[in-house]
Amino acid sequence: MAKSKFEYVRDFEADDTCLPNCWIVVRLDGRNFHRFSEQHEFKKPNDDRALHLMTKCAQTVMQELEDIAIAYGQSDEYSFVFKKKSRWFKRRASKFMTHVVSQFASSYVFYWKDYFKDQQLMYPPGFDGRIVLYPSNQNLKDYLSWRQADCHINNLYNTVFWMLVQRSGLTPVQAQDRLQGTLAGDKNEILFSEFNINYNNEPLMYRKGTVLIWQKTNEVVTKKIKLPKEAEEKEVEVTRTRTKVVPLHCDIIGDQFWEEYPEILAEDS
Amino acid sequence: MAKSKFEYVRDFEADDTCLPNCWIVVRLDGRNFHRFSEQHEFKKPNDDRALHLMTKCAQTVMQELEDIAIAYGQSDEYSFVFKKKSRWFKRRASKFMTHVVSQFASSYVFYWKDYFKDQQLMYPPGFDGRIVLYPSNQNLKDYLSWRQADCHINNLYNTVFWMLVQRSGLTPVQAQDRLQGTLAGDKNEILFSEFNINYNNEPLMYRKGTVLIWQKTNEVVTKKIKLPKEAEEKEVEVTRTRTKVVPLHCDIIGDQFWEEYPEILAEDS
Amino acid sequence: MAKSKFEYVRDFEADDTCLPNCWIVVRLDGRNFHRFSEQHEFKKPNDDRALHLMTKCAQTVMQELEDIAIAYGQSDEYSFVFKKKSRWFKRRASKFMTHVVSQFASSYVFYWKDYFKDQQLMYPPGFDGRIVLYPSNQNLKDYLSWRQADCHINNLYNTVFWMLVQRSGLTPVQAQDRLQGTLAGDKNEILFSEFNINYNNEPLMYRKGTVLIWQKTNEVVTKKIKLPKEAEEKEVEVTRTRTKVVPLHCDIIGDQFWEEYPEILAEDS
Amino acid sequence: MAKSKFEYVRDFEADDTCLPNCWIVVRLDGRNFHRFSEQHEFKKPNDDRALHLMTKCAQTVMQELEDIAIAYGQSDEYSFVFKKKSRWFKRRASKFMTHVVSQFASSYVFYWKDYFKDQQLMYPPGFDGRIVLYPSNQNLKDYLSWRQADCHINNLYNTVFWMLVQRSGLTPVQAQDRLQGTLAGDKNEILFSEFNINYNNEPLMYRKGTVLIWQKTNEVVTKKIKLPKEAEEKEVEVTRTRTKVVPLHCDIIGDQFWEEYPEILAEDS
Repeated sequence: MAKSKFEYVRDFEADDTCLPNCWIVVRLDGRNFHRFSEQHEFKKPNDDRALHLMTKCAQTVMQELEDIAIAYGQSDEYSFVFKKKSRWFKRRASKFMTHVVSQFASSYVFYWKDYFKDQQLMYPPGFDGRIVLYPSNQNLKDYLSWRQADCHINNLYNTVFWMLVQRSGLTPVQAQDRLQGTLAGDKNEILFSEFNINYNNEPLMYRKGTVLIWQKTNEVVTKKIKLPKEAEEKEVEVTRTRTKVVPLHCDIIGDQFWEEYPEILAEDS
Repeated sequence: MAKSKFEYVRDFEADDTCLPNCWIVVRLDGRNFHRFSEQHEFKKPNDDRALHLMTKCAQTVMQELEDIAIAYGQSDEYSFVFKKKSRWFKRRASKFMTHVVSQFASSYVFYWKDYFKDQQLMYPPGFDGRIVLYPSNQNLKDYLSWRQADCHINNLYNTVFWMLVQRSGLTPVQAQDRLQGTLAGDKNEILFSEFNINYNNEPLMYRKGTVLIWQKTNEVVTKKIKLPKEAEEKEVEVTRTRTKVVPLHCDIIGDQFWEEYPEILAEDS
Repeated sequence: MAKSKFEYVRDFEADDTCLPNCWIVVRLDGRNFHRFSEQHEFKKPNDDRALHLMTKCAQTVMQELEDIAIAYGQSDEYSFVFKKKSRWFKRRASKFMTHVVSQFASSYVFYWKDYFKDQQLMYPPGFDGRIVLYPSNQNLKDYLSWRQADCHINNLYNTVFWMLVQRSGLTPVQAQDRLQGTLAGDKNEILFSEFNINYNNEPLMYRKGTVLIWQKTNEVVTKKIKLPKEAEEKEVEVTRTRTKVVPLHCDIIGDQFWEEYPEILAEDS
Repeated sequence: MAKSKFEYVRDFEADDTCLPNCWIVVRLDGRNFHRFSEQHEFKKPNDDRALHLMTKCAQTVMQELEDIAIAYGQSDEYSFVFKKKSRWFKRRASKFMTHVVSQFASSYVFYWKDYFKDQQLMYPPGFDGRIVLYPSNQNLKDYLSWRQADCHINNLYNTVFWMLVQRSGLTPVQAQDRLQGTLAGDKNEILFSEFNINYNNEPLMYRKGTVLIWQKTNEVVTKKIKLPKEAEEKEVEVTRTRTKVVPLHCDIIGDQFWEEYPEILAEDS
C-alpha cells in the first residue's frame, strides 16, 4: 500500500491561477430553478421569501469567505466580486468557484425555514457557478450594469406577463403572444392603463435587485464591567464599530453609487 | 438601460472545456472540517453518522448529475469520476466542479438530521473542489489507488492515536510523540499488544473507504392492475430492473475489483 | 534601478504545462504561402524544391529539439508529435510551439539556396503554430490520418485543376467551375480521359505527403588510426550505427505502417 | 479516405484566447545563444553587429504583424507589446507567440549577412517565446522597467568582467571571483580607477537597450507626374507622411518617456 507509487497522479492537476490585478467575479445561478420555484409555490413574478433567502445566503458567503468587495443579486443568480489584489488561496479559480457555490448551497438549505416557514423544502437544490476576470474598474462596473439592466428587463416583462395571467386571465401562451415585440414603453403603458400600476412605484428590490456592500456600523452594546474601587459589576453602554454586510436596492449603473462608495473600487481595497 | 451596451463583458469569460477522451475527476473536501467535527462532537477516529451522511450526499450527486461512472470517499473527501466520453455541459470544467460541490453541500444540510438526529447542525458547512483529467485507465486507477492508500495510512494512524488518547490517557501531544517515526508494522503492534486490537478486523468502511458504483437491481414491487374481464383491481407482484448507486467497502488497488466490474472502465461507457 | 521593485511582474506569467501522458502535437503552417509561392514561382500543383525544403527544415527541427517521435508534412504544413512521456521543458506549451516554429523558420531561410539555387528568396517568410493534445494512440493515429486524408483530397483537386489550366487553357475560374461538385471518381476520370494520367501513378510524395521517423542506420566511415607499433597512421573502415531522421512517403492511415514501426507508439518511447 | 471520419480530432484543440483589455507581451529569447555567440565570434561584452541585427528583426516583426505598440530589446531578447484592444487573430495566444518568433527567426537568417558580412552563419539559430498579460498601464510600464533594469545590471557586470579579462588578463573564473559580492558602486569604481572608464559615458544602446516605437516621419520623395497641358512628364518633390518603426536608446523607467509619447498607452491605441 505504498502511497508514493501512486502519487505521480498529483502532477496531472493543472494550475488555474487567476491573472493578478484583475477583479475576479464568481456568478452563481440556481439549477433548474424554474421547476424548483413551481414545486415550492414561489409567488410570481417575485417571491419575497425566496429573494430574501438568496440575499441571506450571499451575506453568509461574504462573511465566511475572504476578500469579497461587493455582490449583486437578482432572481436566482448572485455575483460575487473579489478584490483585484486578493491573494486568497493563491487566486486559484477552482477554489473561488467551489467555495462560493458550496457555501451558498449549504446556506440555502440551512436558512430555508427562516424564510419559508411551513413550506417544506422538498429536495436539496443545485447551483452552478462560473468565474470571469475584469482588468479595469470600468469593465467591472459594466459587468454589474449588465446584470442590473438584465434585472430591469426581466422584471418589467415578468410584471406585465403575470398581471396578464393573474388578473386578465390570459393563458401563459396568450400573455406571451401579447407581449411579443413590445418595447419597454409599451409594457409600462399596459401596466398603467390596464392594471393602474405605475411600474416606477414597484418595490426597488424587484426593479433594481440587491447590492451587498461592507459598511461600518456603530452598535451600542451593554457590557458588564467591574470598576476598580467598586465591589459590584456595573452595566455600561459601549459603542462598538463593526463592519457588516448591508443590502441596498439602488441603481449601480449611474455614477452616483460609485461616488458615494469610492472605497469599493479603491486601488488598495 | 440598454443592456446591449454592456454585453461586451460576456467576451471576458474564458473557455474551460476539458480535453476530450480523458477521465474527469472532481474531488471535494470539507472546509475546516477539523473544527466542524469538534463542534459537532464527531466520534473519533471514525463517526459512522458523518461517514454515512457523506455517502448519502455522494449518492445524491451521482443521481442528480450526469455521467458519473464511479465515486470514492473517505474521511471528509469524495472523488467523482465522469466518463471519458461525457459531453455533459460541453465538458466545461466550471460546470462539473460547481454542480458537484453545490449539490453535495445542499444535500449535507438537507440530510443531516437523518443521520445526526438530535445533534443540531450549528452552521452551514463549506466544501472546496478541484478538477483533474486522467488520459488513461491506468492513470485513473492509480488516482483511486492513491486516495485509498491515503485512507489506509490515515486511518491506521488515527486508530492508534485515539486509542492512546482515549484508553491510555495520553495527551494528543504525547500520542503524537509516541507515533513519531513509527512504521505501519509498529502501529499494528501497538494496537495488538496494548489494546488487543487486530487492525485487520476493524470495519472495512474505516479501512477501505467507500466506493460508489451503479448496479442493476431487481426490485419486486406490488402493483395494482385491472384485468380486462374482471371488475376489481388486483394486486400483482412485478419485478422491476433499476440502476442504483450502491456503496461498497472493498479494495480497489488490486485487479480483482476492476475484473469484477469491467463496465466501469469500458470504452463506450 | 532596483530590479526587485519590478520583479512582481513575473507572477503574471501563466502556467501552460501540458497534461501528462498525452501525445503533444505541434502543427505549423506557412503564413500567406499562397502569395509567397506565387512570388517565388513555385511549380504548380507541386514544387519539388519547396517540398524538399520543408522536409529539410522538419528534419532539422527533429534533430535540434528533444522527444519528437514522428512528423508528418504536406503542402506548406508540418506536424510534429512529441512523445507522451516527454518532460522536455516541463511540457510547457509555449516552449514546444515557439521552439518548433522558430527553428523551422530559421532553417527555411538557411537552407533555401540548397533547394532553390538561383531563385532568390525575396523576404523572410512567417509561420504559425498551434498545439493539440491527444490522450490515446488511436486519437493520435486519427489525427495523422486526418492530415493525410487532407493531403490526398487537396492533391487530387490541385492535380486536375492545374491540368485544366496548364494543358486545357481554362482560366482558374473556369477550372474551378468545372470541378464544382465533382467526386474523387470524377476527378480521376477527367485526369485519365482528358490527360491520360493515372492518378495512382503520380509521385507518392505528392499523394501521401512525407512521414519523418527515426531509423537506425549503419554507416561505413573511414577513420585514421595509429596502431601501437607502427609509425604511420593507417586508414581503416569502421561501421557506425546512428539514428537518423528518415523521410517516407507511405500510407499511415492503414494498420501496416504502425505494425512495421511499433516503436513509434510504444509506451516507453 | 473519408476525411470526415477523422475530423473529430479537431475538437481536441483548446481555446487559448487572451483576456480582453490587457496588454499582451510576447518575449523572445535566443536559444543557446551563449554557445552561438562564441561560435560566431561576437565581440564581448557587446557586439554591435548582433545588436543591430536583433533590432532589424524586431522592426520586421512590428511591420509584418499587426497591433504591436512598442518593443524593447537587449542582449539576445526582445519583448513585443500588443495593444490592449487588439483583435488580431481573435487574440489567440498561440498565434501571437508563433508569428512573432517565426518572423524573427527567419529574419535573423535573412538579414544576417547585412550585419555580419564575411562572418558566415554556421547553422540556423532557435528562439523561444512566452506570452504574458498585463491588465494595467502601470503593470506594463513595470514590466518594461524590469527588463531595462535587467539590461543595466547585466551590462554593468559584463563591462567590468570583460575589462578584467581582456585588459587585466584575469581568467574568467578570477574575474568572477573578483566581482563576487560587489555592488553597482564598486563596479563603477573598478571601471574608473582601473580602466579609466566612466560607465555613464558608455554607449546608450549598451546601457539602455533598444526601444522600438512607431513614429510619423515626413519624407521628401521625387515623383514623376504628367501635368494636363504638358507633353512631358515632370519631376516634382512631394512630402509623404509615413509611419515608421524607430529605434531609441533612452530611459523608459522614469516618467519622461511616457509623457513624451503618450500615444503608446492611449486608451484607444
